Amino acid sequence: MVDQSEDRSTVLAHDDVPLPVPALRWEEPPEGPVLVLIDQTRLPAEEVELVCTDVPALVEAIRSLAVRGAPLLGLAGAYGVALAAARGYDVTDAAEQLAHARPTAANLAHGVRRAERAFRAAVDGGAEYEEAAAVTLAEARALHREDAEASERMAGHGLALLGELLPGGGYRVLTHCNTGTLVSGGGGTAFGVVRAVHRAGELRRLWVDETRPLLQGARLTAYEAAREGMAYTLLTDSAAGSLFAAGEVDAVLVGADRIAADGSVANKVGTYPLAVLARYHHVPFVVVAPLTTVDLTTADGGSIELEQRPGHEVTEFAAPSAPGAGAEAGSGIPVAPLGAQAYNPAFDVTPAELITAVVTERGVISPVTGDALAELCAAAPPPSGEPLPGDGR
Amino acid sequence: MVDQSEDRSTVLAHDDVPLPVPALRWEEPPEGPVLVLIDQTRLPAEEVELVCTDVPALVEAIRSLAVRGAPLLGLAGAYGVALAAARGYDVTDAAEQLAHARPTAANLAHGVRRAERAFRAAVDGGAEYEEAAAVTLAEARALHREDAEASERMAGHGLALLGELLPGGGYRVLTHCNTGTLVSGGGGTAFGVVRAVHRAGELRRLWVDETRPLLQGARLTAYEAAREGMAYTLLTDSAAGSLFAAGEVDAVLVGADRIAADGSVANKVGTYPLAVLARYHHVPFVVVAPLTTVDLTTADGGSIELEQRPGHEVTEFAAPSAPGAGAEAGSGIPVAPLGAQAYNPAFDVTPAELITAVVTERGVISPVTGDALAELCAAAPPPSGEPLPGDGR
Repeated sequence: MVDQSEDRSTVLAHDDVPLPVPALRWEEPPEGPVLVLIDQTRLPAEEVELVCTDVPALVEAIRSLAVRGAPLLGLAGAYGVALAAARGYDVTDAAEQLAHARPTAANLAHGVRRAERAFRAAVDGGAEYEEAAAVTLAEARALHREDAEASERMAGHGLALLGELLPGGGYRVLTHCNTGTLVSGGGGTAFGVVRAVHRAGELRRLWVDETRPLLQGARLTAYEAAREGMAYTLLTDSAAGSLFAAGEVDAVLVGADRIAADGSVANKVGTYPLAVLARYHHVPFVVVAPLTTVDLTTADGGSIELEQRPGHEVTEFAAPSAPGAGAEAGSGIPVAPLGAQAYNPAFDVTPAELITAVVTERGVISPVTGDALAELCAAAPPPSGEPLPGDGR
Repeated sequence: MVDQSEDRSTVLAHDDVPLPVPALRWEEPPEGPVLVLIDQTRLPAEEVELVCTDVPALVEAIRSLAVRGAPLLGLAGAYGVALAAARGYDVTDAAEQLAHARPTAANLAHGVRRAERAFRAAVDGGAEYEEAAAVTLAEARALHREDAEASERMAGHGLALLGELLPGGGYRVLTHCNTGTLVSGGGGTAFGVVRAVHRAGELRRLWVDETRPLLQGARLTAYEAAREGMAYTLLTDSAAGSLFAAGEVDAVLVGADRIAADGSVANKVGTYPLAVLARYHHVPFVVVAPLTTVDLTTADGGSIELEQRPGHEVTEFAAPSAPGAGAEAGSGIPVAPLGAQAYNPAFDVTPAELITAVVTERGVISPVTGDALAELCAAAPPPSGEPLPGDGR
């Protein structure tokens, strides 16, 4: 089904809680504009900010995963182009560097290209350089705002979907990796739905996969769940099998880094085994992602470029509190024999047939097919500036 | 099939390589007999020996996983009873403590009870205490020798089975946890088969699951594979899904901690998700375990007691080189928010219908059914002292 007729985003209406951790913000000190990021590699041990004054610093922050998560990468990319424009760097070159900093998340290139197009259109339209830079920043801010709105809409659609799939309420939800306020301009993707479920009083338990090798679940999702006061339990990724076998999982909710035209979903490595387990145990497997994650130019799952990360992320343990730990081989604590080779794909691909539903800001598709995805993408977006439910703007 | 007519243990015939790491040995210094263990929690960083002079020290070594692995636990239990007898401690009390040090591995209680029975029979037969202690030690040594022989026989049967299942040769084998010389009086269970495959020139790649939370794959299996000169690659447990999807796994070989009467297998947590993935991808899933692992008094998988380990094994990282690290909460590096609760089962259960074959020292059963298992257990063992193929004894 392609559901966009009904607005399900009602649950967050009276919840205007300030976001606890600003994952990314633009600042304009006297020395010139900067992009300020929270260094996610050091959470939850420390909340340390990284200040990027130029594009190479931002590219490095993206590669080292100081800033990460599909929607947030889109914002980082757009603000990065705005930073290049504001500081008078070569915008085309900056956009190229940023768009290719990591290969898998569709949102990164999407954000970069959108800001670059705004800059280019302003210049082509005869704008002064400074004015074009302002237009570029405005575009990044628009994307940021839209992303926050998309989070709220996805949360509402996701909550309504769970109500349909599991009429009993009181859900025990399993999630993988980190998909909350740290990956988004708003409340996040899958975690945004979990938050809506929690605030609706329907979250019995959030099962948090630790998400090896970089432990985004243990470090980041557990941190966000604790701040929200959720009943959550951490587990090793492979202990999820025991939970399924014991009937302790009602639904799996995950995000996405790229959705191909056939509905295949690239997401954090470990997602695909969960989808297979969910299918084997007849548990709904739901992907939550904004439309910026959809890439209709990639035909199918097999065509998605999957980032291979360095083996030392597996063969060494990088303590979260050590500055720069994990950035290069030899900087962590060895957990394998010297010289051990590791296979370390950052993502895997889940085929559409294993996915119960894809929740986007524009509605839910279920069953997941290429046609349904194309139809949803082609549908008219909600009128620009349309108020969110409960939003006074 | 219950296969015991044909002796398949031919491959190790001319390979009398000394075992590289003595996981456990009995010594008799002037101060009295001791059991010497290699502290497996500190491998591969350091080869440190633990000397147990009494039963409480051995129980602690078992609980802290300094000594671990189903067959080796049986030996530790038997030698522990022998230690109690030799040093004049209460043998009944020692046997109780040892048998209940950890709940899941059937071999532990089996080894303990066998040594205890030998002691009791000697005493009941009128033996002097010292003589009964000597009989007990002889029984532990007999179990040790039988375990080593069982390793060789399983290796031969397993190699032959792979030849039948995968006639093409050149296997890419995935394994989980650690099942080699460190868990056995001999060459091990699943890893023993892998070694036979390697020595037969048929191992194209050993995929080694790191095996969270305690990383027995990364620390121990990688260490053993490196010492054997195998082509091996380490991976996070959930990256196995990507390998299956890419068609890079020809067979899964794992050990077992307890096999119930219905053929269900309790093994290291993470085994069950691999079995589900293997089934989904039509890849053979093979369990390798000596008959001491079979427990016909446990009716089915649901009746197997599964050890729950402390949450701090998941919420903290214990560096392998730190003495005592991981032994108690707060001794490791935190990787989750303070107060995070963790679900940490040490084992999971794989039902018989997901298992292609169980390889024992007495033959292979496939398909795996309760009847086939009972038949194999009831069959006469090979004549005592029957020489192994190629063994000059």
